[in-house]
Amino acid sequence: MSYFDMASAAPLHPVARQALAAALDEGWADPARLYREGRRARLLLDASREAAAELAGCRPDELVFTPSGTRALHSAVAGAMTGRRRTGRHLALSAVEHSAVLHAAEPYDVTSVGVDRTGRVAAADFAAALRPDTALACLQSANHEVGTVQPVAEVADVCRASGVPLLVDAAQSLAWGPVDGPWSLLAASAHKWGGPSGVGLLAVRKGVRYAPQEPADERESGRSPGFENLPAIVAAAASLRAVRAEADAEAARLSELVALIRSRVPHLVPDTEVVGHDRLRLPHLVTFSCLYVDGEALLTALDRAGFSVSSGSSCTSSTLTPSHVLKAMGVLSEGNVRVSLPPGTAREEVERFLDVLPGVVAQVREHVTVSTGAPAGAPQTAAGPGTGGEAEELAELVVDSLGKRCPIPVIDLAREIGRVPVGGLVTVLSDDEAARLDIPVWCEMRAQEYVGERPAPRGTAYVVRRRV
Amino acid sequence: MSYFDMASAAPLHPVARQALAAALDEGWADPARLYREGRRARLLLDASREAAAELAGCRPDELVFTPSGTRALHSAVAGAMTGRRRTGRHLALSAVEHSAVLHAAEPYDVTSVGVDRTGRVAAADFAAALRPDTALACLQSANHEVGTVQPVAEVADVCRASGVPLLVDAAQSLAWGPVDGPWSLLAASAHKWGGPSGVGLLAVRKGVRYAPQEPADERESGRSPGFENLPAIVAAAASLRAVRAEADAEAARLSELVALIRSRVPHLVPDTEVVGHDRLRLPHLVTFSCLYVDGEALLTALDRAGFSVSSGSSCTSSTLTPSHVLKAMGVLSEGNVRVSLPPGTAREEVERFLDVLPGVVAQVREHVTVSTGAPAGAPQTAAGPGTGGEAEELAELVVDSLGKRCPIPVIDLAREIGRVPVGGLVTVLSDDEAARLDIPVWCEMRAQEYVGERPAPRGTAYVVRRRV
Repeated sequence: MSYFDMASAAPLHPVARQALAAALDEGWADPARLYREGRRARLLLDASREAAAELAGCRPDELVFTPSGTRALHSAVAGAMTGRRRTGRHLALSAVEHSAVLHAAEPYDVTSVGVDRTGRVAAADFAAALRPDTALACLQSANHEVGTVQPVAEVADVCRASGVPLLVDAAQSLAWGPVDGPWSLLAASAHKWGGPSGVGLLAVRKGVRYAPQEPADERESGRSPGFENLPAIVAAAASLRAVRAEADAEAARLSELVALIRSRVPHLVPDTEVVGHDRLRLPHLVTFSCLYVDGEALLTALDRAGFSVSSGSSCTSSTLTPSHVLKAMGVLSEGNVRVSLPPGTAREEVERFLDVLPGVVAQVREHVTVSTGAPAGAPQTAAGPGTGGEAEELAELVVDSLGKRCPIPVIDLAREIGRVPVGGLVTVLSDDEAARLDIPVWCEMRAQEYVGERPAPRGTAYVVRRRV
Repeated sequence: MSYFDMASAAPLHPVARQALAAALDEGWADPARLYREGRRARLLLDASREAAAELAGCRPDELVFTPSGTRALHSAVAGAMTGRRRTGRHLALSAVEHSAVLHAAEPYDVTSVGVDRTGRVAAADFAAALRPDTALACLQSANHEVGTVQPVAEVADVCRASGVPLLVDAAQSLAWGPVDGPWSLLAASAHKWGGPSGVGLLAVRKGVRYAPQEPADERESGRSPGFENLPAIVAAAASLRAVRAEADAEAARLSELVALIRSRVPHLVPDTEVVGHDRLRLPHLVTFSCLYVDGEALLTALDRAGFSVSSGSSCTSSTLTPSHVLKAMGVLSEGNVRVSLPPGTAREEVERFLDVLPGVVAQVREHVTVSTGAPAGAPQTAAGPGTGGEAEELAELVVDSLGKRCPIPVIDLAREIGRVPVGGLVTVLSDDEAARLDIPVWCEMRAQEYVGERPAPRGTAYVVRRRV
């Protein structure tokens, strides 16, 4: 059994377990009380805050503990936006932020800064998005789905020059080191580094205007109400220290294993795209997508083969839309697999994964092709409306993939395109959200020409010109 | 060492510890994931929800886990008020609710329903507070400071008849049993029953209009965002079941010990008032106040003697105001002590407490009297303005207690009143918030007449007529 989904949640670090067990005895009382059990709890809380602040790169009085990374991000966005409400309601963020940031940003006037095909923002684009009424900018330290590291220090400089505070979502990177640059707010989550669940960090640098939006109490400087989750906080701080002590060596080791996956997968598995930056990336995370593969079926098959991985494919989300990160990058979303290695992952486990993967993908492809059956759309010869002058001279094939979910529309397209001559058009009718992302990417991977999309009576018509 | 502050936080129940240890191995993964570690976590989450729902008296799909009881209350108030915003912005609550409810209610139009001297609301008063624009009513099942049990079932009936949902804060009582009556929403906190910190419960009955106000994600039915604190949730549910199995026997046993304290303290310690209802009360909690005693000094002295207790005295709060609960009840707040016994408390511990208490109070009184020194106010003979016709014939003594904190103003009054003849007036000048509550109560305890208060150039003038 190999658990390769560190980016979702890490198994508890042994140091976290020890610290938790000790703190259950010593730290269950209310740290606000004056009696000995309370004073003991207060000492543990203070010591944990000092340790976590040092590792996060801030002062202890700038850091509070929250119930999760998600709540830290929610509080940070609301608190910073309200603290600067006189400046305006504009918020600039990268298009690939975690959904917790996107949800918290919903009430505001948001500019989403695009990313390149590796998932990385350009500091210049961020600078261009800042306005006189920008109250806050948000940028993750590294992306949670593809591992690309963002130019946070550069963007922090840009923001500082404009007087805009920068919130950094450091959930994926804090285990590896502190965040560089003059950031203003920072959020993270203990269960991503091997700490227990139930603990997030929120740092707000002195001088940043901040107005907590939840009903406050006297706990955590009025920034995180409710009884402190103290034993877990103690375990979180202790394990962050332990993880950091091993970080450099472990990063070097895992980064090599990730490089192995990045280089081998495209050769081992045909029609596969490895995504994310190949150098500016987290040490332990790699993501790739496989054409003609149902993501959920692939996850299930890999689970059966003993590997726990994650996916940004549309069929693995409750909304049936592909990951907004893959969408923003403009990369293939079908058959998507994210591998994130926990510290200590052995090279043999990764080798075994690479041994097993080709067969598993082939089997899932086989299954999806068999269950799809006969060609979905009947060939037609009528010229499609609105496809330009050239279309009139050529046969146009309309493929009806309505009602079919990813990856079927792309499979239909791949199967049918051979039926038109080079230069001819294929129109795929689809009401699946993933088709909008995956058909253009398929064209690029296959050196076909993506002409464009237009609304259809049902769903959308995606027009492709055969080039090879 | 005796920990007598169960109402703040309970030491971890052995069953909670076992369940937590097991769940740290089995339940650290993301329950939203499809691989085996995720499915295992999902099973644990579902089983915990079923157990907790059964013990709370609701359906599993009506119950979500929150990071704390405080956050459950905050979410409940905001969600219910917003869900019924078309009805209005009026909220009816008892004057003795937990501060988490009062904080969450701040944005709304609040009617505070008064309580009697035992801290209990009358259902008729609650009924009278409901209006056509009342969106929500809030009532605790039992008071956290004095242990008085509220007529929740009766108030729930009244609310149902008016079509107003009732939110019950069951934090103090859920360990002892489910809440009776047709309540609509319910909140509780695991660390109050011996579960770990970091877990609250929020139940929202089907059919109750509810609109979550935080940025939502897909977790906990969109009602509690962020990664579930799963090992702690498992421990919370397991320990609630364990605590309930012992509840009846333990309630009978502790209730006797509390009855012992209630009956003995007034005889053992002169000038003491036991507060709260003597029968309609939590089994394990008793509160009393001691005249002429500094609450913080008393807590410190009891801690030194090996007893951890809590206090609602003004000097133990960061705002230097007495507990709003004692204020609403109109009972003495100085020298206030809350004793709440954990399950398993031995009779000998309570006997030892009763042995130690008189000496500790006497010592604190001695210290406060010595440090106060000479009489604070010089006797004066000028008739006080605005004290009515009779005053003209009598000497009036003005006692200057400005700048002195509770319990000094009351001590000054007690010391000086003998200097005026029976029928004469004493005016105490004080800028301490506790004086407003404690001077009238002192008059009642001492059979003196409290004439009233009036603004003074600094602070407030409290006028007392000597009757004995």
